[in-house]
Amino acid sequence: MITVIPVTGIPEVGAGDELAGLVADRIDLDDGDVVVVTQKVVSKVEGRTVAIDPDDRARLAAVVDGESVRILRRRDDLVITETRHGFVCANAGVDRSNVKHGTVALLPVDADRSARRIRDALRARTGREVAVIVSDTFGRAWRRGVTDVAIGCAGIGAIVDLRGTQDRTGRTLTVTEVCVADEIAGAAELVMGKARGVPVAIVRGVDGAWLRESSVADEVVRPPQEDLFR
Amino acid sequence: MITVIPVTGIPEVGAGDELAGLVADRIDLDDGDVVVVTQKVVSKVEGRTVAIDPDDRARLAAVVDGESVRILRRRDDLVITETRHGFVCANAGVDRSNVKHGTVALLPVDADRSARRIRDALRARTGREVAVIVSDTFGRAWRRGVTDVAIGCAGIGAIVDLRGTQDRTGRTLTVTEVCVADEIAGAAELVMGKARGVPVAIVRGVDGAWLRESSVADEVVRPPQEDLFR
Repeated sequence: MITVIPVTGIPEVGAGDELAGLVADRIDLDDGDVVVVTQKVVSKVEGRTVAIDPDDRARLAAVVDGESVRILRRRDDLVITETRHGFVCANAGVDRSNVKHGTVALLPVDADRSARRIRDALRARTGREVAVIVSDTFGRAWRRGVTDVAIGCAGIGAIVDLRGTQDRTGRTLTVTEVCVADEIAGAAELVMGKARGVPVAIVRGVDGAWLRESSVADEVVRPPQEDLFR
Repeated sequence: MITVIPVTGIPEVGAGDELAGLVADRIDLDDGDVVVVTQKVVSKVEGRTVAIDPDDRARLAAVVDGESVRILRRRDDLVITETRHGFVCANAGVDRSNVKHGTVALLPVDADRSARRIRDALRARTGREVAVIVSDTFGRAWRRGVTDVAIGCAGIGAIVDLRGTQDRTGRTLTVTEVCVADEIAGAAELVMGKARGVPVAIVRGVDGAWLRESSVADEVVRPPQEDLFR
């Protein structure tokens, strides 16, 4: 059984605040817990925000451009780009929601490193061996609606490779590399909600075999040359 | 808090078996539970399997072709097609894992209808008002690894539209249509595993406001004309 627990009462954060302390003060962690933290609070504590006049669309476009290595599609105000991290998402992840009026939040420079820092700080404070996932909200090709996915992780395999194991009929499974990091990020979103101001959730009870060093950059980001849709 | 509970002990099923009974015999359902059932068992009870010699690649290709309305990409043995339902996935969802040797499973003809049938049968047996999601395992553009998503649903909104609500800073959110059906399907996969033979899981504790009539076909399937990647 898995439980997904919202961490409530976390105040508005700013540059330099220590997320691990804000989490550890509000919930008793267990070994093996996965602490899911939204990109927005990580970007805020890391100072990854930029002041922009809300009406200055040219300036916003320049910021998005600076975060991107290539533009995949453009329709009206929506631009789908590949970010410097290799993520494909709307507006290079530059986002005005849940930030101070007149500012936008950028993605963390290296969300895997952000996750490792939070994990290390939680270990130092609590003595618990937890995993951390930094989540963000992305759209998808072919399907409507957004879902939360992992943009960084520490202490949990982003992808669980079941290739070579057998299914219940004894057939050897050929391709079953499951992106559990994305599934965990999505599960966490179910208790966060966009408007409820809950930027952290605990996913408790995941398979202990998944807990290992890993990174979203190495395991999840699909290089353009192996991608059929770029 | 949300809990995700595997329903264990469900035997191998065949055409004509009644899934609702197999589930209701093994777990006490609550009002508002979301019962997630994998496509594979739904296809089996609905008789959506085809006998194919495992070495007959031409015959398999013909079956995939029959399930598809268009081919998007092809690389070696992998073909990404748009199915008759409008799903974009590998091999039109035709799959050899967890089915009898020498057979393949096709997607249900209408997985929203499958979900409604299971929901109605569970209500008749238990008196509980539950939601049902039929899940399947799809790959994604741009990101490695597969995740479980919803291909049919009943009794729960596939997409929760938070447009027009306010975030914690008071800004009106512009685009926040969250595909909770996919996030719930992914959460359920975390306790199912591919090789563990657990084809059903209960997701308990979702926001009661999400419980309404809906369908994946109407809400999630993105028509080609509004899709930037077809």
